[in-house]
Amino acid sequence: MSDISNLPNSKKIVLKTRPDGDPKVSDFDMIEEIAKAPDDGEVLVEVQALEIGAWIRTTLNETAFHGSTPISGTIPALGNGKVIISKSDKFKEGDIVTGPLMAQSYTTMAADFFTKVPNPEIDPFTQIGILGVTTGLTAYFGIYEVGQVKKNEIVLVSGAAGGVGSLVCQLAKLKGAKVIGIAGGKEKCDVLKNEIGVDASIDYKNQNVDEQIKLHAPEGIDIFFDNVGGEILDIALDNIRDRARVIICGAISQYSHHDSVDGPSLYLRLAEKYARMEGFTVMHFEERYEEASKELLDLYNKGKLKVPFHIEDGIDNFPLALQKLFTGGNTGKLMVKV
Amino acid sequence: MSDISNLPNSKKIVLKTRPDGDPKVSDFDMIEEIAKAPDDGEVLVEVQALEIGAWIRTTLNETAFHGSTPISGTIPALGNGKVIISKSDKFKEGDIVTGPLMAQSYTTMAADFFTKVPNPEIDPFTQIGILGVTTGLTAYFGIYEVGQVKKNEIVLVSGAAGGVGSLVCQLAKLKGAKVIGIAGGKEKCDVLKNEIGVDASIDYKNQNVDEQIKLHAPEGIDIFFDNVGGEILDIALDNIRDRARVIICGAISQYSHHDSVDGPSLYLRLAEKYARMEGFTVMHFEERYEEASKELLDLYNKGKLKVPFHIEDGIDNFPLALQKLFTGGNTGKLMVKV
Repeated sequence: MSDISNLPNSKKIVLKTRPDGDPKVSDFDMIEEIAKAPDDGEVLVEVQALEIGAWIRTTLNETAFHGSTPISGTIPALGNGKVIISKSDKFKEGDIVTGPLMAQSYTTMAADFFTKVPNPEIDPFTQIGILGVTTGLTAYFGIYEVGQVKKNEIVLVSGAAGGVGSLVCQLAKLKGAKVIGIAGGKEKCDVLKNEIGVDASIDYKNQNVDEQIKLHAPEGIDIFFDNVGGEILDIALDNIRDRARVIICGAISQYSHHDSVDGPSLYLRLAEKYARMEGFTVMHFEERYEEASKELLDLYNKGKLKVPFHIEDGIDNFPLALQKLFTGGNTGKLMVKV
Repeated sequence: MSDISNLPNSKKIVLKTRPDGDPKVSDFDMIEEIAKAPDDGEVLVEVQALEIGAWIRTTLNETAFHGSTPISGTIPALGNGKVIISKSDKFKEGDIVTGPLMAQSYTTMAADFFTKVPNPEIDPFTQIGILGVTTGLTAYFGIYEVGQVKKNEIVLVSGAAGGVGSLVCQLAKLKGAKVIGIAGGKEKCDVLKNEIGVDASIDYKNQNVDEQIKLHAPEGIDIFFDNVGGEILDIALDNIRDRARVIICGAISQYSHHDSVDGPSLYLRLAEKYARMEGFTVMHFEERYEEASKELLDLYNKGKLKVPFHIEDGIDNFPLALQKLFTGGNTGKLMVKV
């Protein structure tokens, strides 16, 4: 389909109102229009799969670290898709690419925004789950490079049943660490134990997190990998041992009130324990994406990594998927099949 | 004076009521009694000088990291003194020792609590200021070991005119860093510029700290050495650059309400900047006190370190000195001449 006179209809999700707190379906609108014809250097991509990440919420504020989405602007999103018209030497029609496709069913953008996926034989959801910038790569650099996890260390992971958390648990286990995963609800905890293979799980909705940490790690934890922030961060800080590393990967509990974040009131535990809290974003490791992707793919191909994901069907359900991420309605990486 | 039948009168400062907020003179009592005769293995020490540290405040709570002082218990304090009766092989009468003498004019305690000062020719105040556990040694390990300060880095120091801060500024300068010191009031800022030799000072009582940091470090800071906590910690976090280190040495602004500490609400800047917040207490480096003391003494003898201190006269004034520490009434290390 390289006939520019016959461009497809594209649906896109735009911002109607800035969410007050967690994002709701009613904060978004869907607009249908004919996809834009690519100019020289651009490609038209048919979007296959989009990942739902907490970072998207931060762009819905008026001032935002990842850039602010204007009212009526298309919601940013990362994903995979197939090039259907190419006006660039970089790609030919039929290539599977990954990049900032945005929340829409067709995307026209400069080819430079995208990279070709090295393994088009793997379905797009597994691909995003394991090799995505905000999934596998974040988990890899977070636990291996920032956390420097070592054999026999005790690693506590919040949001452990999520896209990043579930991979962090497995990557830590592969290094010989003991892993305790925190998630909300029995179903997620079952997945953690039976599929992800954690040593212990904590259901924060039905168990006392502090008591459970003390039960499974009576001498304290070496690493806390935090995707959540808020109260759980303080509880974890209260349970660190000497030289612990608290890795700040995200703070989904705080993104919906970014201007009045609850800071960790027990941060002085860092001094008592000669411990550190270190943050990162995956972009800091951009030069090493290729190397890490190879290793992750290799582990996956050897059957050593499982990639749980939760798929919502259709671009129309993108707002619902985003809402679910904040209500904890997903086990594994949330994605939209477009 | 090794005549046990003729023991001196000793004054000691005890806790009358647990302070509500910052410690006040009225929270303490002074008791006078005859010094206890040393048993075998003990020494009787005439206290010469005591250092006033913010950690003392933390012991006045019912639950406390450094141990809790009971009501009517003697206030803990570190200092130097002269052995006047020794029932231990470790010391002879006349030896100058350093250790946990407590807030009193004579101390009877196991000799093992003390170490002999290697340089008795230096006056006790300079000695405490430069080689004290909570002064020179804290500054040394904090900025060199935890902070790993490097040439041309920009180092921001809070409480810069205090006992630790003034040494941190100088030690960072000696490594070739650019140093910005934060202190309260023109007088302290003048000391910072004229005596300590910082590159820039910020008077937090009369200047906008955020604006001043941006003025002196438009590209952000590499190291924040924090003795203060609270609002200044958040302002500093808002000004870190990539790979910055925030060193948590203390949080004097928070010690008086230890159960409801204000956590740094901008801690997510750590993730944005791939930065770390690392805490320590000097006790973590105990095995290396000797090596660090030698280096500090050597720098002092070469005239490369100045040790500003503020002396209150007489053990009676120990409560006043402690109160002053929290109202910012001192420039340089606060000490009591006993």
